[in-house]
Amino acid sequence: MFETNVVRTSTFGQLSCMLSYLLRLNRCKQLRSDYAIEKGAMVDLCVMRRRGAVFALSFMLIVSNSLARAQVPLPVMPLPATAVQGTGSLLVDPGLQIVFEGYTEPRLERARTRFFNVLSRETGAPTIPARTSKEVKFIIKTAGPSAIVQQLREDESYHLEVTATGVLLTAPNPLGILHGLQTFLQLVHSTPEGYAVATVTIDDKPRFPWRGLMIDTGRHFIPLEVIRENLDGMEAVKMNVFHWHLSEDQGFRIESKIFPLLQEKGSDGLYYTQDQVRGILQYARDRGIRVVPEFDMPCHTTSWFVGYPDLASGSGPYQIERRWGVFDPAMDPTRESTYQFLDQFVGEMTALFPDAYFHIGGDECNGKEWDANPRIKKYMQTNHLRDNAALQAYFTGRVQKLVAKHHKTTVGWDEVLQSDTPHDVVIQSWRGPDSLAEAARRGYRGILSAGYYLDLNQSAADHYAVDPLANGMPALSPAQRANILGGEATMWTEFVSPENINSRIWPRAAAIAERLWSTQDVKDINSMYRRLDTLSQKLAYYDLPYQSVSEQMLRRLSSYTDSPSLQVLASVVQPPRDYAREDLKPYDVFSPLNRLVDTVPPESDKAREFNEIAARIAAGKAVSADWQKAHQWLVLWRDNDAVLQPLLTKSSLTTELVPLSRNLSQTATIGLFALDTLQNNQRVSVKMQKEQMSKLKELENPEAVLVNMVVPGVEVLVRAARTR
Amino acid sequence: MFETNVVRTSTFGQLSCMLSYLLRLNRCKQLRSDYAIEKGAMVDLCVMRRRGAVFALSFMLIVSNSLARAQVPLPVMPLPATAVQGTGSLLVDPGLQIVFEGYTEPRLERARTRFFNVLSRETGAPTIPARTSKEVKFIIKTAGPSAIVQQLREDESYHLEVTATGVLLTAPNPLGILHGLQTFLQLVHSTPEGYAVATVTIDDKPRFPWRGLMIDTGRHFIPLEVIRENLDGMEAVKMNVFHWHLSEDQGFRIESKIFPLLQEKGSDGLYYTQDQVRGILQYARDRGIRVVPEFDMPCHTTSWFVGYPDLASGSGPYQIERRWGVFDPAMDPTRESTYQFLDQFVGEMTALFPDAYFHIGGDECNGKEWDANPRIKKYMQTNHLRDNAALQAYFTGRVQKLVAKHHKTTVGWDEVLQSDTPHDVVIQSWRGPDSLAEAARRGYRGILSAGYYLDLNQSAADHYAVDPLANGMPALSPAQRANILGGEATMWTEFVSPENINSRIWPRAAAIAERLWSTQDVKDINSMYRRLDTLSQKLAYYDLPYQSVSEQMLRRLSSYTDSPSLQVLASVVQPPRDYAREDLKPYDVFSPLNRLVDTVPPESDKAREFNEIAARIAAGKAVSADWQKAHQWLVLWRDNDAVLQPLLTKSSLTTELVPLSRNLSQTATIGLFALDTLQNNQRVSVKMQKEQMSKLKELENPEAVLVNMVVPGVEVLVRAARTR
Repeated sequence: MFETNVVRTSTFGQLSCMLSYLLRLNRCKQLRSDYAIEKGAMVDLCVMRRRGAVFALSFMLIVSNSLARAQVPLPVMPLPATAVQGTGSLLVDPGLQIVFEGYTEPRLERARTRFFNVLSRETGAPTIPARTSKEVKFIIKTAGPSAIVQQLREDESYHLEVTATGVLLTAPNPLGILHGLQTFLQLVHSTPEGYAVATVTIDDKPRFPWRGLMIDTGRHFIPLEVIRENLDGMEAVKMNVFHWHLSEDQGFRIESKIFPLLQEKGSDGLYYTQDQVRGILQYARDRGIRVVPEFDMPCHTTSWFVGYPDLASGSGPYQIERRWGVFDPAMDPTRESTYQFLDQFVGEMTALFPDAYFHIGGDECNGKEWDANPRIKKYMQTNHLRDNAALQAYFTGRVQKLVAKHHKTTVGWDEVLQSDTPHDVVIQSWRGPDSLAEAARRGYRGILSAGYYLDLNQSAADHYAVDPLANGMPALSPAQRANILGGEATMWTEFVSPENINSRIWPRAAAIAERLWSTQDVKDINSMYRRLDTLSQKLAYYDLPYQSVSEQMLRRLSSYTDSPSLQVLASVVQPPRDYAREDLKPYDVFSPLNRLVDTVPPESDKAREFNEIAARIAAGKAVSADWQKAHQWLVLWRDNDAVLQPLLTKSSLTTELVPLSRNLSQTATIGLFALDTLQNNQRVSVKMQKEQMSKLKELENPEAVLVNMVVPGVEVLVRAARTR
Repeated sequence: MFETNVVRTSTFGQLSCMLSYLLRLNRCKQLRSDYAIEKGAMVDLCVMRRRGAVFALSFMLIVSNSLARAQVPLPVMPLPATAVQGTGSLLVDPGLQIVFEGYTEPRLERARTRFFNVLSRETGAPTIPARTSKEVKFIIKTAGPSAIVQQLREDESYHLEVTATGVLLTAPNPLGILHGLQTFLQLVHSTPEGYAVATVTIDDKPRFPWRGLMIDTGRHFIPLEVIRENLDGMEAVKMNVFHWHLSEDQGFRIESKIFPLLQEKGSDGLYYTQDQVRGILQYARDRGIRVVPEFDMPCHTTSWFVGYPDLASGSGPYQIERRWGVFDPAMDPTRESTYQFLDQFVGEMTALFPDAYFHIGGDECNGKEWDANPRIKKYMQTNHLRDNAALQAYFTGRVQKLVAKHHKTTVGWDEVLQSDTPHDVVIQSWRGPDSLAEAARRGYRGILSAGYYLDLNQSAADHYAVDPLANGMPALSPAQRANILGGEATMWTEFVSPENINSRIWPRAAAIAERLWSTQDVKDINSMYRRLDTLSQKLAYYDLPYQSVSEQMLRRLSSYTDSPSLQVLASVVQPPRDYAREDLKPYDVFSPLNRLVDTVPPESDKAREFNEIAARIAAGKAVSADWQKAHQWLVLWRDNDAVLQPLLTKSSLTTELVPLSRNLSQTATIGLFALDTLQNNQRVSVKMQKEQMSKLKELENPEAVLVNMVVPGVEVLVRAARTR
C-alpha cells in the first residue's frame, strides 16, 4: 500500500514542481490544496525550487523517475523538521564503517553497537566488527558531551547528510547523534540493488522538550524486559521521558531499603529491586531518555498501608486492592509522622533517580477516609482548611517542600494546581488543554496527557489530532506558550498484561511521538498512517514484536488451528473506546486477559479502510477497485460466521464470540444489499432503510466486550442507498 | 487437524477394545494392523483391558464420548513409557496450588515459578502468588536430592497422577519432578469448560540416559539468549545434555583467563565470559540438563593459533578462518609445549565445567600441515608413528591422559577410537550406527549423532527413524547394548544465524528427543507429526517463538507487504538436503542468511501433505476431500506466479526467486493435467508422460538454493495417469 501511494503522490509532486517553476508563482499552498499533495512533499519541492531554474528543469527531464520516487515525505516517524531529498542512493553494505571524529564517549560506542544490531536484524546481514568497508564511511561528529544528568531543555538537534558515497551525522552533543542514528535506520529500505538509503540532507530538532511515555506498573506489574522493550521503542521514535508510575492501590513496585514493608507487604513479590532500577536508568540514559518516577499520593496508596497502616487516614488493617476503581484509602495529611516518613522516603528515591523532576501524583482523591476521621475533621477546622481540596492542597504543599529539600522539582497531576502552588511545580494535565492553558497562563509549566491516553482505545488519528498548543487554545503569550513543555502518552494498566501491553502502546505511541517532535503543520493523517505502518514493521527489529505476540494470542484462542475465519472476525472488531469496557463485564486484578478483546489491536486497520471506501462510494467518488473490494469483503464477512461458529464453541475462551460473529454476518448482509442497490442505481424505500438503520443500531452494541467496527461504513452505504 | 484425527482414531480404538473384550482374544497386534490404529492408543487399551470386563463394558456404554476423546496417544512429546487414561478432566484453575511434601530445594521452587510462567502464557491467565485455590492441589513428593553434579545414569523417572480433583507428582529425586512438570504442561488444553487436563496416570522414565543437543557456537557465534531459549526447549522435551561446541577454525568462543589471546585474537570479540558460562551452567542444572563442553582438537583449531601460533604445526601467522570447510591448520602433536599448554587449558576449563565428561573433538584432520613439516615427519619416524592417523591417536592419547588427570572422562568423535584408546573414552558417532556398534562391541560407550544432524535439512520422520539400537544393527550382548548411551542432535552452524537457528533446531529436535526417551516401539510417524505440531505451538510459550521469527523474516523478504503470494511459494519449498547447499552458491562467514532458503522451515508440511494426497490418489484410495484439496492447491500454485513476479523483482533479496516461482507454476500445470486425466478416468499417452516426467526432472533442480517439494507428488500423479 505504501508503494502505491508513493508513486501516486509523487506524480502530483512532480507536476506541481514543474508548474510552479514555469509559472514562476510562489503559491505552493494553493497547489497543495488543488492537487491534494501531501504537506511533506510540498515543503521539499519548495526548498528545491529555490535552488534555481536550470537545476529544476534538468531534474525534471533527466531523472524524473528517481524524482518520482523521492518526492514524498520520508518514511520516517517522527518526520524531521527539514529534509532535502537528492536523487541517488547509498547502498547500505553490511560492512558500513562508523567513524567517530571529535568528541566521543562509551555511550556513543554502545549506540553504534545497537545501531548495527538493529541494522543487522533489519537487513538480515551479519555485522562483524572485523569486516568494515573501507569505501563507505559513516562519519559521526559530536561537539561535546551532554549533561551528566540529562536536562529538560538540552539540545537534541542533529544534522544528517546521506550521499551516494557516505554519511555525515553531526550534533552538538550525543543526544542528537542518538536521534540521527534512529532516523538513518528508518530510512533503510530494500531495493533491487540491495538495502539502500535515498540521498538526503536532514536538519532536525524537536518541537517540544518533554516527549514522554508513562507506564503504570502498579496495577499490573510489568517485567523489566518489557520496560526495556519500550525504552527501545521510545528511542526509535525519539521520545525522551519515561514516566514510571511505581505505586498504586494494587501494588507498590519498588524496593525501599528504609521501609522494606512497602514492597514486602504491598507487592505480592512483584517489584523492582534498586539494582534493577539502576539498570533501567542506565538503559534509558543510553537511549537519551530521562526517567521520572511517580509515587502517587495521598490517594491510590492502599498498597503502602498494608505494611505501614499508620500512614493512612483510616483505621486499617489494609490489604492490597484487587479491584479496579477509585478507592477510599488516603494518607493522613494531618500527622507529622506522615511527613517524617515521606521525607525519608523521598530522600531515598531522589537519591536513586537522578532526574531533576519527581512526580508525586495527586489524582483522584474521593476524601471518604478524611470525612470519616473525626481527628482529621477537627484538624481541618483548627487550620481553616475548608474542604478536602484544601486539605489535599495543604498535603501537596508539604510534600512539594520535601521534594524541593531533596533538590528536585515536583510534577503532579492537575489536582496539585491550587491557588498557592509554588511556580516551579510542573502540571501534568489529564483533564485537558483548558486546564493546561490555564496553568500556562498562570505561569506554571505543563505537560499534556489528556488526549494521549493509550488505554482508552482511541485511534492513532485521534491522538494525532491532539496538539498541546492547539489552535483552539485561548491565545497565550510567547512566554506562556513556552510553559507548555510537551506531552506524555499514558498507558494505564487495568486492562493490559505483560503479554499484550506492547500491542496497546505500539504503534500508536509513535503518532503521539510525532505530534510532539515534528513541526505543528505536519498533520496529514494518510501520510501518518502510511509511515506508522512502515514503522510498525521496523519495530520488530527493536525487540518489539508486538504483532507476532498478537498472532500468537490468536492462535491460542483458536486452540492452535490457525483459523483464518477467526482472523477475519478479529480484523474488524475493536475494544470499546474510553471507559466502556469496565461497564460491560466485571474485571479485577485476577481476570485473565486472554480473550479476543485483549488480542486485537485497539484500532482496526481493515475497518478503517472499509469505512473510507464506503465514504467514497456514498460520495460518488469511488473507483472500480473500491466497489470490488467492498463487495469482496462484505461477502467474506457475511459467509465467515458459518465457518467460524463450530470453532467458537470448542473453547471457553471463544464461546462468548458466537453473537459477535453472527452480528458481523448480519451487518455484511445489510451492507451487501445497500451496495447492490447503489451499484444498480436503485433506491431503497424509506421503510426498509429505517428498518436497516435500526437493525444496525443494534448490531453496533458491543458483544464479548468488542465493537463491530464495520457498522459505521455499512450505515453510510445504507444512508446513501436512500439519498442518492 | 489434530482434533479430527483424534476423533477418528479413537472411534477405531473404542471398537477394537470392545471387540477384543467380547472375543476374549489377546490379539491387539492384529487388530492394530486391521484397523490402522495407532500404537500408543493400542497399548493403553490393552492395559485397560486387564482391569476386567465389567469396567471395560460400563466404560463403553456410559462414557463412550469421553472415551472417544481419551483413547489416543497423549498429546505429549516424548510419549511417556506408560499412561493409563481415565474419563474425567481436571480444570486448570489459574490459582492451582503447588505443594511440596517431603524433600525440597530451591531448584524445585524455581521450577514451580517456571511452571507457572509457562502455564500463564499457555492459558493467558495471570498467576499471582497471593491467589491460590484451596481446592485443587498439585502435590509434589520428592524422596531426596539428586547428585550435586548431575550424573549420567541418574534416575529420571516420575509418576504423575491427574484426577478430576488434583494432581500427584512423585519422583525419587528432583530430575523426575522436572520432567513430570513438563509432561503436565503439555497435557493442558482448551475445552468448552476452560483449560483442562484429562485424567491420567503416567509412569515414565527414559530409554537412554544421554539425550543431547549439540550447538556449534564456533562457526556462527550464538548469543547467550538463544542458548537459554534452547535450554528451555530441551527441558520441554526432556533432553538432558547440552553439548556446547566452543571452538572452531572460525572462532574461539570462551574466555580463558590463563590464555586470554584465545578469545582476544580468535573471536572477533564474540565469546562467552566465564561468568556468563557459569550463568548457563546454573540455568541448565535448573532444567535437569548437563553441560558438556567441546574443544575440538587437534584440527578445526585455526582460531586458537591467531593468538598462540606456537601451538600449530605450520609456521603461521594465522588469521581467523572466514570460509567454510576442512582446513589445514592442526596442533603440533610432537612438541611437549603443546601438552603443557593443553594441561593448563584443560585444567582451567574442567574447573569451570562441573560435568564428568569433557569433549575433545578430534574430527576431520586432513594432515596437510603435518605432512608439510619436516620436524613432525622426523618425529613420526623416530617414534614409529606410521601415518597421520597414528599421529592423531598419539595426540588423543596424550590429551585423554590430561583430561583424566583433571578427573574427567574424555568424549570424542569417531576418529578418537583407535586400537589402544582407553576404555572409558566415550565415542560420539558421526559416521553411523556401524561405527557405534563396533565401538560398543569393543567395550566403548557411545552416543549416536549420525542421522541426527539438524543442519542437513532432513525431515523429522527421517531423524525419527534412526534408532541408536536399530534392528539392523548386528546383534550385541546386553552389556554391549548398555554401552550405547543414547544420542545427540547436532546443529552445525555454517548456514544458520542467531536469527534462524531456532527454526532449524525446532521442532525437529523434539522428534529426536522422543526417539531417545520413549520406548523403542513408539514409531508411528503420523502420531509423531500430529504431536510435533501441537508441541510446536506450545514451544512459543517457552520463549521459543521460532515460527514468529520465520514470519518476520518473510515479511522482510516481501518488503513488509505481508505478501500472501510469497507465503504460498514459501510453503512448498525447502533447502536442499545434506551438503548440497554449499555446492549451489558460495558462502562464507560474512554471507547474509536472509534469503528465502534461510526463512522456510527445513521441512515443508504443506508439500508433505500434498505428496501424501497424491499417493492416495495414485493408489485409488483418495476420498473426495483429497481430490478437492489437490485441485485447489494446484490451481493456487499455478496462478501464484503471475501475482508474485512483480514483487520479486522489487528487492535484491527476492530477484533470485523468479525462476523458482515459475517452476512452481509449471509443476502445478502438469499436476493439474494429470489430475484431470485421472478424474476423468482417461490415460495420457506414453509420449506425453515421458515429456512431462522429463520436464519435472528439470523442475526438481534447485533454484535460489531451494527445492520445489511438490514435484514428487506431481510425478506420482503423472505416473498414475498413465498406468491406472
